[in-house]
Amino acid sequence: MNSNYYLVIMAGGVGSRFWPVSSEELPKQFLDILGTGRTLLQLTADRFRDIVPNDNIYIVTSANYCDIVKEQLPDVPAENILAEPCRRNTAPCICYVSWKIKKRNPKANIAVVPSDHMVTDEKKFAEAIQQTLEYAAETDAIVTLGIKPTRPETGYGYIKADLSFASSRKNNMFRVDAFKEKPNRETAELYLKQSSYFWNSGIFIWNVSTIVNAFRVYQPAMSRIFEDLLPVYDTPQEQEMIDKLFPECENISVDYAIMEHAEEIFVYPASFGWSDLGTWGSLREQVQKDAYGNACIGPDIDLYETYNCIVHATGEKKVVIQGLDGYVVAEKDGTLLICKLSEEQRIKLFH
Amino acid sequence: MNSNYYLVIMAGGVGSRFWPVSSEELPKQFLDILGTGRTLLQLTADRFRDIVPNDNIYIVTSANYCDIVKEQLPDVPAENILAEPCRRNTAPCICYVSWKIKKRNPKANIAVVPSDHMVTDEKKFAEAIQQTLEYAAETDAIVTLGIKPTRPETGYGYIKADLSFASSRKNNMFRVDAFKEKPNRETAELYLKQSSYFWNSGIFIWNVSTIVNAFRVYQPAMSRIFEDLLPVYDTPQEQEMIDKLFPECENISVDYAIMEHAEEIFVYPASFGWSDLGTWGSLREQVQKDAYGNACIGPDIDLYETYNCIVHATGEKKVVIQGLDGYVVAEKDGTLLICKLSEEQRIKLFH
Repeated sequence: MNSNYYLVIMAGGVGSRFWPVSSEELPKQFLDILGTGRTLLQLTADRFRDIVPNDNIYIVTSANYCDIVKEQLPDVPAENILAEPCRRNTAPCICYVSWKIKKRNPKANIAVVPSDHMVTDEKKFAEAIQQTLEYAAETDAIVTLGIKPTRPETGYGYIKADLSFASSRKNNMFRVDAFKEKPNRETAELYLKQSSYFWNSGIFIWNVSTIVNAFRVYQPAMSRIFEDLLPVYDTPQEQEMIDKLFPECENISVDYAIMEHAEEIFVYPASFGWSDLGTWGSLREQVQKDAYGNACIGPDIDLYETYNCIVHATGEKKVVIQGLDGYVVAEKDGTLLICKLSEEQRIKLFH
Repeated sequence: MNSNYYLVIMAGGVGSRFWPVSSEELPKQFLDILGTGRTLLQLTADRFRDIVPNDNIYIVTSANYCDIVKEQLPDVPAENILAEPCRRNTAPCICYVSWKIKKRNPKANIAVVPSDHMVTDEKKFAEAIQQTLEYAAETDAIVTLGIKPTRPETGYGYIKADLSFASSRKNNMFRVDAFKEKPNRETAELYLKQSSYFWNSGIFIWNVSTIVNAFRVYQPAMSRIFEDLLPVYDTPQEQEMIDKLFPECENISVDYAIMEHAEEIFVYPASFGWSDLGTWGSLREQVQKDAYGNACIGPDIDLYETYNCIVHATGEKKVVIQGLDGYVVAEKDGTLLICKLSEEQRIKLFH
């Protein structure tokens, strides 16, 4: 393994769309939502098993979740688990961890990934990460992984690539033309037909100097906060100072803070079977289904005349369902939800 | 209270139609299926609060359930809880307890009732029991309570009364013409139109000599078993002898064993709001429903666009249901059932 390769996992989300299985106390990244025996956070770390040494794995999360992270990733050094005192979106999170890593290893090449996504082809994923980390080591490029669309998805942002302009050093890396917000159905259909549009996976790869310089240029105030803290990183004062200064950061995503402005942005087109697992419906799409379109996660689930459902009941000893079509049935710790998948955007209003 | 009045509660059933809330370990008579804070057995005993002294209440149940009965009816003397070593339907059960009561009080007048039925008008019920017990004390009549039908129910047996032949002493007691099996829909409609048909409630009232003589005449072999045991009732040998001899009894209902043959059978027409609570659907019919036809039993159940459902989830902290019509949703101890009410006869096959 390359000792200059680093992994940053962003694990501060408090998603409410997988209620009641996920909750603010235990958001989905900390849950075995796929029924594999590993939580999404653990699966995310597992994917870098052969690429990044444990000592180079950093997790940025809410202060409330640090103990959960320690428990779920016992091989990651406790001092690599960074506690945000409040939620400020992805830019402050990345700025903080980047400056901290820069202090430790100015030659670091970093992959930044969300903690709650799903990847089905881990080999292809590892290949994409290896190639982009290599590329980041050699260049000042900001690289994002773009997923080849397989359906006119309206739930994702898109990246428009300039396919005529491949990177000079790698012919499978293309300059980014534009980042696109979540499209409507019609636009999504259009994107799907063209080969230059990719799903924005929210996965970034860069070397530490590149990202730190980008923050210096495009977010000077934010950058200064974390640059000024260089002397206190890895000292007993770090958390105290972060607790004091982090809340002063602008609440902004890295997409708006950096990507929209930076020049050297490249997309690596990938097709490793990816989902952001944003909803019960997308979970149903991703996991193994029976011949009737049902995805069941739980020890003993019997279905009769039931179609296109997702059933998540890992805590129930037995579940019997007769006569449902297109529903989510989810139970956790004494809370039960039954809801049409077509109405699942209302779940966050239900609890 | 009249010290010659006795109550026999038959509590040996192992219904499987309320699965998963009921189970063989804890059948529905031992459950707070109505969400009132009292089990069906307790509610049954409660109805006789002002009619029968606690010392005169007898429960006949399976040996497996004796401890549950003791716990649920702590005021009933433990020696009044009779343990059947095996299931032999209602005739041996009634024959046993009748001989036992006869030994203790040959002047006993007894109401025999199932443990798992529901009554909504307890005052009317008490009135019916008082009147029929009084009548039983004065005559050798076998009295059954017939419920005035309110719908063409195909799930109950019926009693055809001879309305022209009222009892000479009570003008609200009629001779039974015939017992009718569960009818089909067409026949049930016919019964409903005529005023001489009543639902067979399975509640009987008689004096102990009458029922014991009826057993002597119509079930001599069975009667002899329990008559021969007269010397051992209320001795340490009773259970041992019952365990040995009870299994020899014919497996037969009191309807077939006695009612079909006896002469002096009368029906008391009643309308105290009765249900045998045989199915989830009948439970929904009986309990309080919201404006959309939903019956909810549980601490915190929120429904959206949900109609004609019965939800029983007393162990769940919270239940949210969106978009169901005509379903039973039942959860207990880690087992969840969702099933169309129209398919509920299949529930017993599901577990």
